[in-house]
Amino acid sequence: MPAVGMVGAGQLARMTCQASVSLGIGFRVLAGAADESAAQVCAGTFLGNYRSASDLRAFAAGCDVLTFDHEHVPGPLLRELEQAGIPVRPGSEPLRHAQDKRVMRERLIALGVRVPRFAPVSSLGEVTSFAAGHGWPVVLKAVTGGYDGKGVWICAAPAAAAEVLSHGIELIAEEHVPLERELAVVVARSPSGQGAVYPVVETVQREGICREVLAPAPGLPPGTAAAAQRLGLQLAAELGVVGVLAVELFQTAAGLLVNELAMRPHNSGHWTIEGARTSQFEQHLRAVLDWPLGAPALAAPSAVMVNVLGGEDPDMYARLLHVLAGDPGVKVHLYGKAVRPGRKVGHVTVLGSDISALRDRARRAASYLSSGTEQA
Amino acid sequence: MPAVGMVGAGQLARMTCQASVSLGIGFRVLAGAADESAAQVCAGTFLGNYRSASDLRAFAAGCDVLTFDHEHVPGPLLRELEQAGIPVRPGSEPLRHAQDKRVMRERLIALGVRVPRFAPVSSLGEVTSFAAGHGWPVVLKAVTGGYDGKGVWICAAPAAAAEVLSHGIELIAEEHVPLERELAVVVARSPSGQGAVYPVVETVQREGICREVLAPAPGLPPGTAAAAQRLGLQLAAELGVVGVLAVELFQTAAGLLVNELAMRPHNSGHWTIEGARTSQFEQHLRAVLDWPLGAPALAAPSAVMVNVLGGEDPDMYARLLHVLAGDPGVKVHLYGKAVRPGRKVGHVTVLGSDISALRDRARRAASYLSSGTEQA
Repeated sequence: MPAVGMVGAGQLARMTCQASVSLGIGFRVLAGAADESAAQVCAGTFLGNYRSASDLRAFAAGCDVLTFDHEHVPGPLLRELEQAGIPVRPGSEPLRHAQDKRVMRERLIALGVRVPRFAPVSSLGEVTSFAAGHGWPVVLKAVTGGYDGKGVWICAAPAAAAEVLSHGIELIAEEHVPLERELAVVVARSPSGQGAVYPVVETVQREGICREVLAPAPGLPPGTAAAAQRLGLQLAAELGVVGVLAVELFQTAAGLLVNELAMRPHNSGHWTIEGARTSQFEQHLRAVLDWPLGAPALAAPSAVMVNVLGGEDPDMYARLLHVLAGDPGVKVHLYGKAVRPGRKVGHVTVLGSDISALRDRARRAASYLSSGTEQA
Repeated sequence: MPAVGMVGAGQLARMTCQASVSLGIGFRVLAGAADESAAQVCAGTFLGNYRSASDLRAFAAGCDVLTFDHEHVPGPLLRELEQAGIPVRPGSEPLRHAQDKRVMRERLIALGVRVPRFAPVSSLGEVTSFAAGHGWPVVLKAVTGGYDGKGVWICAAPAAAAEVLSHGIELIAEEHVPLERELAVVVARSPSGQGAVYPVVETVQREGICREVLAPAPGLPPGTAAAAQRLGLQLAAELGVVGVLAVELFQTAAGLLVNELAMRPHNSGHWTIEGARTSQFEQHLRAVLDWPLGAPALAAPSAVMVNVLGGEDPDMYARLLHVLAGDPGVKVHLYGKAVRPGRKVGHVTVLGSDISALRDRARRAASYLSSGTEQA
């Protein structure tokens, strides 16, 4: 049986490792340290630096396919691995669109896909000139390296923009879109070109961090849902993605806009572990192995996932017992990460029919795990 | 977070390891060799001999709770661990009833629970005398050490019994019960006394090996199902079981008889991975940790599990791709074990409403994985 190597050892690699057990394949992670989330549970942990060409080569030597739990491996290193004949999935070329926000936006526009209006900016003059056309606030985004709200600044006035510009990083300015809500669609694509798409979900962000996912997105007109699913499959095919592609969308009065792309299992797909016939983690493995994809169908009428963020008290143990006792149907996923305020340390999922009741249950469980208080 | 140590590294430990990932706990296995099923995937593999007191002690030193994926650890070693203050779950006293068929039957009779009529036998005269009362065939069973049909002989006549007696092992003779079908009920119990019980399932055995499990058991009258569930919970409580207890039952015209007990996750509960809100593997961990138990409710109207037995051709890879392509909804679990004819090397589960269609799909997938031929 083949072995998949995943670069990165965060919670995405941890949950992919868990999914790999059923498939009878080998699974290895490249971890920076033995206490990282996936390294704690993976029998095939390899310690090394994902920015080191020799560490990547040594890691790849034990794997049939290389994939990623983050987008931070530098493009030149990816191309070097590809030139050495190692199957890198997704490849360096599609990955550029998840690594570089400017490249992504320019490519999507060329494909006729709508994105928020944006412009590269490197001076306050360029920002104020962009704002003259699109109004304040202006959203500044780091072109590379951002995640979970890091690298995104909503600037109400020039002073705030000047502060961001002073960091000296490559930026784009983006219009602040008046959105109704955020949606996401997760698709998978194999090297053979097979595609599979999950139901469209609603995602709720606070301070740039995904807090809740409602699957399927409540009240979404079937035509809009189908359009979002087609868009996801189209982008995966046009960009040549192999593996899971998550497309974050803005739902606006004027239709859907693409906000971000991620080419790996994604927070908006965690609900699929229990809520879909095939989890996004198993699906990612099947896709990168070029195995036939699994059914993405719902396993229950609805699923709600809420992230557990670290609170002030790092010891979750007593709180966990309370949550399990209070709701025997809640599925808790803990990532084994040190608890720090605001850090994603786990998630909970509940399945059922009444999405508002599910949301209450999931919020209650996640809130209690975080802080020992119940907020439904 | 606590660490659970499981003695044994077969597929039950492998699937328990997989379940442990969500809970954020430590999980270790005591394996005889690094290529055993669970050792391949467990980051906390400890190599040693489960019949060695010092290996058991060394393994237990890194664990907060000790549990088992088989019943073969000798009782005196278990008691030694308990005397050293190590939480052994289930404990040596309840485990005797899963280790010794005679002890189990005598205890169940004392509790007023019906079992097939039996007698300890050590000579051909005792067997023929038992047969004089209960007729041929006589079922001879090894008092200790049997599993998967090993240690069970259905003897049609004295010559066959003489052959079994010649092995010199401790035996019981049991009446050959005219059964309608076999059922099983899986329950879990925590040290605090909390119990949880799964729906009663039908199990189909061939040559003493569990081949299929239908959940819930089709056409079982609700009163009989409830009686079987009560019996499971009662036995767990009366015997002081901690963890999962599987009760194998004969359904006969005269009612339910208890056939065997297992105090660990059990083949008749594999369907719970996808088919129940809490899998038996997560439930076992929660029980031995004395955590609140999870909901055992069905996650779909019906589930069918079929075991994958090794066939003549050890290379399952091409056949696996065929099965995944042919039925995107089938869930395949491969154990990473070397393929030998007749050996359990995996299982498949399908969920849905029409149990006869599910059975066809699951049989087809399992049969193709085994042999490359489809038998529905």
